[in-house]
Amino acid sequence: MKGEKQEIHHTKPIRCIVKLGGAAITCKNELEKINEENLDIVSSQLRQAMMPGWSSSMKVLGMDWSKRHGESEVSGNIEDFVHNANVDSSRFVVVHGAGSFGHFQASKSGVHKGGLDQSLVKAGFVATRISVTTLNLEVVRALAREGIPSIGMSPFSCGWSTKEKNIASADLAVVDKAIDSGFIPVLHGDAVLDKLQGCSILSGDVIIRHLAAHLKPEYVVFLTDVFGVYDRPPTEPNAVLLREIAVGKDGKWSVVKPELQNMDKQVQTTVAAHDTTGGMETKIAEAAMIARLGIDVYIVKAGCRQPQTTH
Amino acid sequence: MKGEKQEIHHTKPIRCIVKLGGAAITCKNELEKINEENLDIVSSQLRQAMMPGWSSSMKVLGMDWSKRHGESEVSGNIEDFVHNANVDSSRFVVVHGAGSFGHFQASKSGVHKGGLDQSLVKAGFVATRISVTTLNLEVVRALAREGIPSIGMSPFSCGWSTKEKNIASADLAVVDKAIDSGFIPVLHGDAVLDKLQGCSILSGDVIIRHLAAHLKPEYVVFLTDVFGVYDRPPTEPNAVLLREIAVGKDGKWSVVKPELQNMDKQVQTTVAAHDTTGGMETKIAEAAMIARLGIDVYIVKAGCRQPQTTH
Repeated sequence: MKGEKQEIHHTKPIRCIVKLGGAAITCKNELEKINEENLDIVSSQLRQAMMPGWSSSMKVLGMDWSKRHGESEVSGNIEDFVHNANVDSSRFVVVHGAGSFGHFQASKSGVHKGGLDQSLVKAGFVATRISVTTLNLEVVRALAREGIPSIGMSPFSCGWSTKEKNIASADLAVVDKAIDSGFIPVLHGDAVLDKLQGCSILSGDVIIRHLAAHLKPEYVVFLTDVFGVYDRPPTEPNAVLLREIAVGKDGKWSVVKPELQNMDKQVQTTVAAHDTTGGMETKIAEAAMIARLGIDVYIVKAGCRQPQTTH
Repeated sequence: MKGEKQEIHHTKPIRCIVKLGGAAITCKNELEKINEENLDIVSSQLRQAMMPGWSSSMKVLGMDWSKRHGESEVSGNIEDFVHNANVDSSRFVVVHGAGSFGHFQASKSGVHKGGLDQSLVKAGFVATRISVTTLNLEVVRALAREGIPSIGMSPFSCGWSTKEKNIASADLAVVDKAIDSGFIPVLHGDAVLDKLQGCSILSGDVIIRHLAAHLKPEYVVFLTDVFGVYDRPPTEPNAVLLREIAVGKDGKWSVVKPELQNMDKQVQTTVAAHDTTGGMETKIAEAAMIARLGIDVYIVKAGCRQPQTTH
């Protein structure tokens, strides 16, 4: 998606905000299961994108020195760092969705509808945060294993809160400082406090939009489990991949490529029953909001080398 | 430890800040191993302390609905909440140390000495945070399984930073809001940014002192792996348990009970080689700083029912 460019100058611009879609890094149909293969591929590709000085002859300097499950020793070759100073990375921010983490706990308890005075909602809030922070830790570890200086930053802890699904407060100074210190902040969709209804679910897409408006990155990439945005659920026959979407100043979006045969036919979006963050319609609307800021948005299948050209 | 009481009135006072010592909840001599038995006992005792309305005839309403390792189903009986509204808890804050998590990564890379421009330190910072947040998640889960509405809050993400080992900034508003919403914040010793040297280790004890000064709890409890403070390392023969320590207005402390036979003999403290936060001397000094604020401090062996009377 492309919007009209605004002239913004930064001494140290943020290169990219990447959204790792929950469906791309977890197994959608299995509760709390990470798609390890996808996550590893994505992490490796992000390293190549973030570290322009890195060549394939160089060793990957892993930064996860924790024990992996079932092992007694820490991973990573700490000695390698002494002889290798080049761990500088471009200024990126990573935000990931929840996928098969968190959604179950949130929808069972109704965290997205608020009401912390109800014991079920309060417990669901705790359970949801446990689940999404478990995923966050695993994403941070996967990126760190690829030598990306990733730092987990939970929106709740960073003081993010909502009011009617919009951001009411967010301490971006902490994110700024982490970037300035050379780290890659890794945020995620989270259960947060809500000024009106007590609590709510803050989706990764809303976080991305807020970060994009503040950080003004060169571009925003959404890594998903499909090749991009289709005119109807991509599991349906004859679903057409939309290659280019234009966003007007009013935030309204229209399909530029391909020319849809039947222009009266609306783009159909669905919301899965367990999805507490609004499904594809919310996602497109959020992406359009970013394009409106003059920031190019790419929607790409995770692990692919050929991005869908959407602008 | 006891200091002179100051008259402070709160409409909703914080009852207690509890420090779970790293040595008490992890296996000190085994890298990244949680002392599950101790952690479970402590979590159960904290539930009893935090939930005055709870009786043994009531069901424990677990709030960790995640899969436990090796299981395919989520834990916790979500339906129970519908018929049971009583999950109110006293206003507590939990802070835990790192034990066998984080110390290895921090000391190997020198995170406590700063220097984020060195690749080893930067990687060590990432590795340390991965390790300590792994422990934090497990502590939050253990408390949640006991029905405690625990919320993990990483000091780095909450905007805590240091300057020469002291707190330079800390967003206590997030902690306050979590407490006001009925949650039990769970903070931990963390790698943070430092205004002078780039980065540093913020110990759980320094966090406790800062929280105590701000929140003015009724009391502070340190749960450790020994019965309290001894006149020398408790592994040495003839080590004497100090039952009562008085703290003067100047912050200096002296042993009141028992009367030491040789008063010239100083209390000996040691710092383990892998400990980047200062060992027992720092811990006593931090406890004394809290007592000086007029807040009683109890130092107790984790899992014991009879606390050491120190005041």
